[in-house]
Amino acid sequence: MSPPFIANADVTAVNAASPPVISPVSSECSELQAHRIDQPLPFPSVLKNPFKFVDGPPSSAAGNPDEIAKLFPTLFGQPSAMLVPSDSSLVQMNQKLKIGVVLSGGQAPGGHNVISGLFDYLQDHPKGSTLYGFKGGPAGIMKCKYVELTAEFIYPYRNQGGFDMICSGRDKIETLEQFKQAEEAAKKLDLDGLVVIGGDDSNTNACLLAEYLRSKNLKTRVVGCPKTIDGDLKCKEVPTSFGFDTACKIYSEMIGNVMVDARSTGKYYHFVRLMGRAASHITLECALQTHPNITIIGEEVAVKKLTLKNVTEYIVDVISKRSELGYNYGVILIPEGLIDFIPEVQQLIAELNEILAHDNVDEGGIWKKKLTTQSHHLFEFFPQAIQEQLLLERDPHGNVQVAKIETEKMLIQMVETELEKRRLEGAYNGGQFKGQSHFFGYEGRCGLPTNFDSAYCYALGYTAGALLQSGKTGLISSVGNLAAPVEDWTAGGTALTSLMDVERRHGKFKPVIKKAMVELGGAPFKKFALFREQWAVENQYISPGPIQFVGPTSNVLNHTLLLELGAQA
Amino acid sequence: MSPPFIANADVTAVNAASPPVISPVSSECSELQAHRIDQPLPFPSVLKNPFKFVDGPPSSAAGNPDEIAKLFPTLFGQPSAMLVPSDSSLVQMNQKLKIGVVLSGGQAPGGHNVISGLFDYLQDHPKGSTLYGFKGGPAGIMKCKYVELTAEFIYPYRNQGGFDMICSGRDKIETLEQFKQAEEAAKKLDLDGLVVIGGDDSNTNACLLAEYLRSKNLKTRVVGCPKTIDGDLKCKEVPTSFGFDTACKIYSEMIGNVMVDARSTGKYYHFVRLMGRAASHITLECALQTHPNITIIGEEVAVKKLTLKNVTEYIVDVISKRSELGYNYGVILIPEGLIDFIPEVQQLIAELNEILAHDNVDEGGIWKKKLTTQSHHLFEFFPQAIQEQLLLERDPHGNVQVAKIETEKMLIQMVETELEKRRLEGAYNGGQFKGQSHFFGYEGRCGLPTNFDSAYCYALGYTAGALLQSGKTGLISSVGNLAAPVEDWTAGGTALTSLMDVERRHGKFKPVIKKAMVELGGAPFKKFALFREQWAVENQYISPGPIQFVGPTSNVLNHTLLLELGAQA
Repeated sequence: MSPPFIANADVTAVNAASPPVISPVSSECSELQAHRIDQPLPFPSVLKNPFKFVDGPPSSAAGNPDEIAKLFPTLFGQPSAMLVPSDSSLVQMNQKLKIGVVLSGGQAPGGHNVISGLFDYLQDHPKGSTLYGFKGGPAGIMKCKYVELTAEFIYPYRNQGGFDMICSGRDKIETLEQFKQAEEAAKKLDLDGLVVIGGDDSNTNACLLAEYLRSKNLKTRVVGCPKTIDGDLKCKEVPTSFGFDTACKIYSEMIGNVMVDARSTGKYYHFVRLMGRAASHITLECALQTHPNITIIGEEVAVKKLTLKNVTEYIVDVISKRSELGYNYGVILIPEGLIDFIPEVQQLIAELNEILAHDNVDEGGIWKKKLTTQSHHLFEFFPQAIQEQLLLERDPHGNVQVAKIETEKMLIQMVETELEKRRLEGAYNGGQFKGQSHFFGYEGRCGLPTNFDSAYCYALGYTAGALLQSGKTGLISSVGNLAAPVEDWTAGGTALTSLMDVERRHGKFKPVIKKAMVELGGAPFKKFALFREQWAVENQYISPGPIQFVGPTSNVLNHTLLLELGAQA
Repeated sequence: MSPPFIANADVTAVNAASPPVISPVSSECSELQAHRIDQPLPFPSVLKNPFKFVDGPPSSAAGNPDEIAKLFPTLFGQPSAMLVPSDSSLVQMNQKLKIGVVLSGGQAPGGHNVISGLFDYLQDHPKGSTLYGFKGGPAGIMKCKYVELTAEFIYPYRNQGGFDMICSGRDKIETLEQFKQAEEAAKKLDLDGLVVIGGDDSNTNACLLAEYLRSKNLKTRVVGCPKTIDGDLKCKEVPTSFGFDTACKIYSEMIGNVMVDARSTGKYYHFVRLMGRAASHITLECALQTHPNITIIGEEVAVKKLTLKNVTEYIVDVISKRSELGYNYGVILIPEGLIDFIPEVQQLIAELNEILAHDNVDEGGIWKKKLTTQSHHLFEFFPQAIQEQLLLERDPHGNVQVAKIETEKMLIQMVETELEKRRLEGAYNGGQFKGQSHFFGYEGRCGLPTNFDSAYCYALGYTAGALLQSGKTGLISSVGNLAAPVEDWTAGGTALTSLMDVERRHGKFKPVIKKAMVELGGAPFKKFALFREQWAVENQYISPGPIQFVGPTSNVLNHTLLLELGAQA
């Protein structure tokens, strides 16, 4: 019997197979969303049975431990905590808790499952506990805008993408005034703990808040969770940030489709810009998944001090070589933050900001004489549209807006110009170059989380609950052994101060969790570097296709994580 | 036991479950691609058992039957043919055949399965037959560039997206000279038949070629297959064109993700332009799948003779209303061909082409006095960037390039301007408007075909083989009863002349298969119209998520087809 092609109206029929515990509050979801809601989540064994925490040795800092110790006098040196099986367990501590949770910064698939895991912990263990969701990010804490999260409230968001359960925001709790507002909220709600789901900045601020509250002898503890599709918040004990796996797979689906199109059509170069301003992990992972002809990694550009001309010439060299082989098409991946990695561009921007702040830009171009020779050359190297964009589009402070430059379109123009130049010089006589530009960004932030991100987030949230119940503060929820089956994953907490270094700003030391950049000596980049010349001229495109939730291909893990864990060669 | 998160290297392990008949020629494919290759296809029962063709009554034409009869003297009036079970079957006709196949025009998911179905028919029935694939589209026929398609050659492309097996092209076989070239190729390869996989134009030309070859008393028969993601090649007997189902689901996945992001972030209006220049079926289907706040359907704009100002004001009205409700975000779908549907824009373009051909565009703008009042107003209504684009970007014939206008960006600018105007007038005091633009196009043309498109295409190809073996020509392969399980699908062929009308070009009648446009009285548009006001102000977003190939949600059919078949209310 072959599958009948069913109508959209059949949601009930689909659901009938797995009886829902609670009906979705709204029928407004797709069959797949409905199916995912009821999908049971695998779960680390250590969290299923009675457990206790075992502390490791005292920790230090990622850099400048003396300064970090001064900034975090009560928290510095905290050990990591590891969950282990136990007879006399935490589970028997049945004091009811009041916990707050907040989503901070950009969306990442899986955030709802962190909250689900935290909620389920509070249901399973200190039964009758209360969970408050602060609305719209850290501003919700400062304004004490919250909603009580009940089973009915949370249910429709299980395994769903987005942050729309309580929404997020980019405000920061940084100043003393803001800490006091947070303190007020904690007191008003009588909070035993707060879970901050966020990236490097949000976790730094979570730790500062933990320090503040402890220094005030308040009972409210603060635990972080590693969130960012960019993949740049990770360390040995936190092998990856959630959302990276899903986002890279969504982008790779699109890239794979475009690759098959490029090969079928045979006449376009597709320039694909990918989200990720600070680090190029997404671009690198997508390259490992799809084998594009050219991939630009920002960190390599920075380390090798490449110029925009170098990058352009590298692309044109590959295009020329491919044309000799009869291929007048290809796929090129570019990280969103490419321009920020190029030292000469930074220099030009700084000079432009200075000039534009004090002088008029005359039509005759006399103003350009104020640029250094190098910056002047670079400015003239830009296509006219980019020149205009640099001069005209400025932010409220009058600064040039680099972020607004569509790098993929800029590179297409530069490649066109360079190819034309070579053609005139007789150095290129290949096929016509036709560029197509793409930006894959928002599509990847709110997709349905993969099986991996769903399970990982649930474990992160559940662990965060255990950390808070055991009185921990200033830790980040840490789930490890991720290449193994979910049962065998480890759970614990890592001292946030151990991830920190300081930066000097306005004459003061400020703590920062250093962003994890692409390491040129790391396994993912090394694998890419080993193959990229082959991928440039041969067409070894791979189309990963859409993320699957059931079936034999539903549990494939991203390359970056597997390579970093040593689980893939 | 929970799923282990496996490494990419485990392709062999995944494949071990279903023993491959033939190993893939290349290891360069993803786990999902590998899994899909070996996935057995469901199959209409009527094709599994002995069958014969039963002819229907003589056919007419979609319009101007007298002219069509003159243009197709040997083919006009052919009956449709329906496959029915039989004891004394076609299957016993064991004469070996030589068949050619060609992919024509833009990519659509499923093309490889049409070829696989055709190949398997030739293996199952007239055993020992030969299949030639013409390379690079109709030009491959004219130049007789082909490859013999063997089991090993075809195998890695089963259930795969793209047209890269033999590639496609946009050349046309139209002139007498070109017909003669095709005749030469048919003779050289001793072809018994040719299958043309293409859209309305390609099928029209396939029918002209069928007529030409029959009029020459050549044995080569020609059969078409309905291909286009745009969904505008369909009729009663051909309920849908292949690729539409997959493409719409890929776009809807992305739209759904963007919707969840919009709701989570709460501050952006996403303007999504979707492929489909001639008809708005894709945009309508995506709207039915995802429930956006605003959807512009080109056919409605044309029927109601709306102006660009009307469209802009409609969008701004919805934005204002949403702002009053506290929603300063939303998702808006726009068909690629929107501008082509607006009569006043067509008029302006015509006037601009005329003026630009004869006059210089003076900086003072005196040239604008040559525009009619209406066109002058419209030109001034355009944002400056669009004005410049209209004047500067022209095709090799000097014509304004409407296709290059990024409609979604243009609308964002127009909405900004209109909101600003209303704000100054005191008619709008809502939140800040921030537009984000997207174009979903190439991503959808070459995705892995859905279970529906995979099965539909295989049945189309298999049926095409049966039609050719039984001596049919000038028919399009027709598979019906598509809302039923695959076993119960019907198979047959429809006279291509019955789909045709004539257009007068250069004083001559030319046959055309009329594009099937969105009907404002049709079930899909009526359902959309019933709900759109609700979708505008309430947020009933649906996120269909990634296409699934196994599991309970893997056989959901698109709304357009179900509604047109009366299988969905």
